[in-house]
Amino acid sequence: MPRSRHSSISPRDLARHHRKRDQITATMNPGTELVSIFKPLSDHDVKRIHHAALDLLAQVGIAQPTERIKQAALNHGCKISQQGRLLFPRAIVEDMIDKAAKEFIMYGRDPAFDFEACSNKVNFCTGGAAVLMLDIEQRKYRPSTLIDLYDLARVCDTLENVQWFTRPVVATEIENLFELDINTIYACAAGTQKHIATSFTMGHHVTDMLPMLEALSKGKQAFSERPYCTAHATTIVSPMTFAGESLDVACAAVDAGMPVNVLTGPQAGATAPAALAGTLVQGCAESLGSMCVINMLKPGHPVILSNWTFISDLRTGAFTGGGGEQALLGAASGQMSAFYGIPGGVGAGMSDSKVPDNQAGFEKALTIMSAALSGGGFVYESVGMLSSLLGCSIEAMIIDDDMLSNIHRIAKGIEVNDATLSVSVVADTVDGPGHFLGHSQTLELMESEYVYPRQADRLSPDDWHDTGAKDAWDRATERAKQILSQHYPDYIDSTTDDYIRNHFPIKLPKPGVTTSPA
Amino acid sequence: MPRSRHSSISPRDLARHHRKRDQITATMNPGTELVSIFKPLSDHDVKRIHHAALDLLAQVGIAQPTERIKQAALNHGCKISQQGRLLFPRAIVEDMIDKAAKEFIMYGRDPAFDFEACSNKVNFCTGGAAVLMLDIEQRKYRPSTLIDLYDLARVCDTLENVQWFTRPVVATEIENLFELDINTIYACAAGTQKHIATSFTMGHHVTDMLPMLEALSKGKQAFSERPYCTAHATTIVSPMTFAGESLDVACAAVDAGMPVNVLTGPQAGATAPAALAGTLVQGCAESLGSMCVINMLKPGHPVILSNWTFISDLRTGAFTGGGGEQALLGAASGQMSAFYGIPGGVGAGMSDSKVPDNQAGFEKALTIMSAALSGGGFVYESVGMLSSLLGCSIEAMIIDDDMLSNIHRIAKGIEVNDATLSVSVVADTVDGPGHFLGHSQTLELMESEYVYPRQADRLSPDDWHDTGAKDAWDRATERAKQILSQHYPDYIDSTTDDYIRNHFPIKLPKPGVTTSPA
Repeated sequence: MPRSRHSSISPRDLARHHRKRDQITATMNPGTELVSIFKPLSDHDVKRIHHAALDLLAQVGIAQPTERIKQAALNHGCKISQQGRLLFPRAIVEDMIDKAAKEFIMYGRDPAFDFEACSNKVNFCTGGAAVLMLDIEQRKYRPSTLIDLYDLARVCDTLENVQWFTRPVVATEIENLFELDINTIYACAAGTQKHIATSFTMGHHVTDMLPMLEALSKGKQAFSERPYCTAHATTIVSPMTFAGESLDVACAAVDAGMPVNVLTGPQAGATAPAALAGTLVQGCAESLGSMCVINMLKPGHPVILSNWTFISDLRTGAFTGGGGEQALLGAASGQMSAFYGIPGGVGAGMSDSKVPDNQAGFEKALTIMSAALSGGGFVYESVGMLSSLLGCSIEAMIIDDDMLSNIHRIAKGIEVNDATLSVSVVADTVDGPGHFLGHSQTLELMESEYVYPRQADRLSPDDWHDTGAKDAWDRATERAKQILSQHYPDYIDSTTDDYIRNHFPIKLPKPGVTTSPA
Repeated sequence: MPRSRHSSISPRDLARHHRKRDQITATMNPGTELVSIFKPLSDHDVKRIHHAALDLLAQVGIAQPTERIKQAALNHGCKISQQGRLLFPRAIVEDMIDKAAKEFIMYGRDPAFDFEACSNKVNFCTGGAAVLMLDIEQRKYRPSTLIDLYDLARVCDTLENVQWFTRPVVATEIENLFELDINTIYACAAGTQKHIATSFTMGHHVTDMLPMLEALSKGKQAFSERPYCTAHATTIVSPMTFAGESLDVACAAVDAGMPVNVLTGPQAGATAPAALAGTLVQGCAESLGSMCVINMLKPGHPVILSNWTFISDLRTGAFTGGGGEQALLGAASGQMSAFYGIPGGVGAGMSDSKVPDNQAGFEKALTIMSAALSGGGFVYESVGMLSSLLGCSIEAMIIDDDMLSNIHRIAKGIEVNDATLSVSVVADTVDGPGHFLGHSQTLELMESEYVYPRQADRLSPDDWHDTGAKDAWDRATERAKQILSQHYPDYIDSTTDDYIRNHFPIKLPKPGVTTSPA
């Protein structure tokens, strides 16, 4: 513990300090410019990985392109191997990297939630497709539902550090795939006006539900000007094979003017090499290949390059998301996106723990911090996910958001200039009061230099005991119940809602109807 | 979740994989060479902070040097200001940085625990002087005791990622300060043969207990050749004032040939500027000043440069150890030590949470990872500490050690060479089985590329539920009770023990006597 001279602060200084303290509203803003950098790869290694990925694309290629993609690629100079694999000559990939969109706006339905997609900013999103929900009351898992998705959207709507809402859970009670896709979008849009995203099971689902997306924007043109929904398309089945239906989804999204997040999920030791460098190479090849074919359809279309390199526990072959290897791969994937200058996405925060316990805390912190500080752009799965992505928890979401404020603060770095170096401040204080709490610099910096947690406990042991000895999960449960019982946003007006419900099989009760047991 | 082609693995490949899996013993070794680097400060900013620290030492200086230090410093060209402060001309500080020991061995009582002190390796230690212990049975705080200290030493003895044991708790029941110091050393040495460390309340306590330290080494010469005990000396009371008694302790340790950890703990906004850069400058000045005076007494004496910059929650002025600001300062302090090339120490893992919950997990992960990857050398407080350093927990220690294995893995980075880039491995697999689990590369890398957690849960949700739905704290409690009931090491032979007990007021029951309720 720090030792102090225990100098007394003057009553005047203390009063000034207390006045300032009572005014504090500071929280972190999202989209922090990245100053603190975490680099697992040297610049030389980044280039070696890139060149090996180009080798894979040129020599091995990607199997099973759809007919539309194959034609576009052949028109741009790609070739077909004897085995029917699409080969990408190196110069063509380099050309498409040049042509790719480097910065674009991700729109919210409310412009207050617009933000910039670019590398070297720290942006957090939800993500995932969990099928289990950690029930708040029972603290046990049960299948996730459409109501859970709506509740998660409402909670995410209130979180300061999460910029967009990708559906974290699947509405497992809906069997019809079109009904699932349409209700997924509806539940997201009912709960938040932040940018939303989901995957679609078929390409024509994008086209078929476009009138709903447009209605939520108040018109076709409004949606095309401010597309507030991204299509996640896992366009690759590793190793090195296109996923036809997802490729159709990506194409339909391009036609609809929606940003596309092209995803690949090579899993080290299972669907990709056990060598981390090899998984990274394969993931770069797979995601670059997808990025190339989208840009061949429409040069400069907003594409997020999601090279979600995953880890296997090689004792079982099962996916594991919480270890140091995952932290390394996430950061390295981010470094590769930063090298390409294309906004990149990585998954992080994919704890293997089943509950929001200490393991969940440290696994999320290690993996999310690594990914966020590598300069890639977007960190998905950054709040709420548990059980190696099979489970989701509202309480975890609330705790994780608090952690993200710390990661934003770390990303922002330490400002070094003549004023902050503080030589004269120290000299003044040594010769004067001997204590800095009442110094004018302290009062000036209370909001800008420091983040005050929303959820984390900073009480003394005695005060903590006297206020119920609550742990992080207890406090998050209280906050979750408060949000769920109070935050019923009215983001879809009744005329629009009637139109949508008349044309689409919406299963969510009308907004405003109490849906949660809380 | 990653998508797979679900290719089947051949029975032969699966059998090879299972044989290999059953042989896995891999854990991380301590002292990892640092490859992955986290840098909150640019190289330019590092130099600006250094120059500002030199300005402080030359212009403001450090108050209240002891007579012995004052004479040594004046003999080396330091000056005394009109206010009686010791001023350090820039050239003298630069000269002492050159002369300071850059690499030295930290000895264990057992040579198996020897390790190198140098920057750019990742080393974890305990630390702290908590006065509260989180009782395993009650899960409540109570005052810490000598038995707790011994139990913590025994547990630390079994932890793979903690290289030395600094007393984490104070034996609060011992009022006499000499008895406290002597029993602290004895309890540490009874529980582990790793390098140990503690602070001493008075300089002559070091001298007075030297015969015990030598007896534990089997002789005076053996101790001087392999000093296994470091003296922590908080030689500064911030801002910029020497702590006379601690300076005496440091001098006595130098005379005794023991490594010295010179500590300063400037607390931003309280005993140092609220500007993080300013706190860093003041901490550099204070720790460099202490390092200089030790080197003036004995050039090249093993000194650890511990610039433990702390954070205040400026709403209350209280110390807070878990936030993003602390992570930044820890890493920046490590960067400064790496710049000087002198083995440095920072405190990290100082969570504000009272229990080993999610908050403790993420606060420890953010701060320890930041500090460990900055290249400074030693991370103190890295296991077990809670309640902003006021509390300690054996269960937290066990969980935290598991986290440290992940940080070692992250530090080790990603090996990039022709083999790991794996272009031919991918080509083989795409044309062959379509799956990598049975590939010879996978079998080769199962141990070297991956860390398998000792404590973290990687079960499926169903298996987790069926095995009792335990959280990290539950599992750590089981492990703690197992260690405490089984691990009674016999590190002090009966002849030595009799000698020590005849000459010193040892209060710990004889080793081997059951002390823990478990």
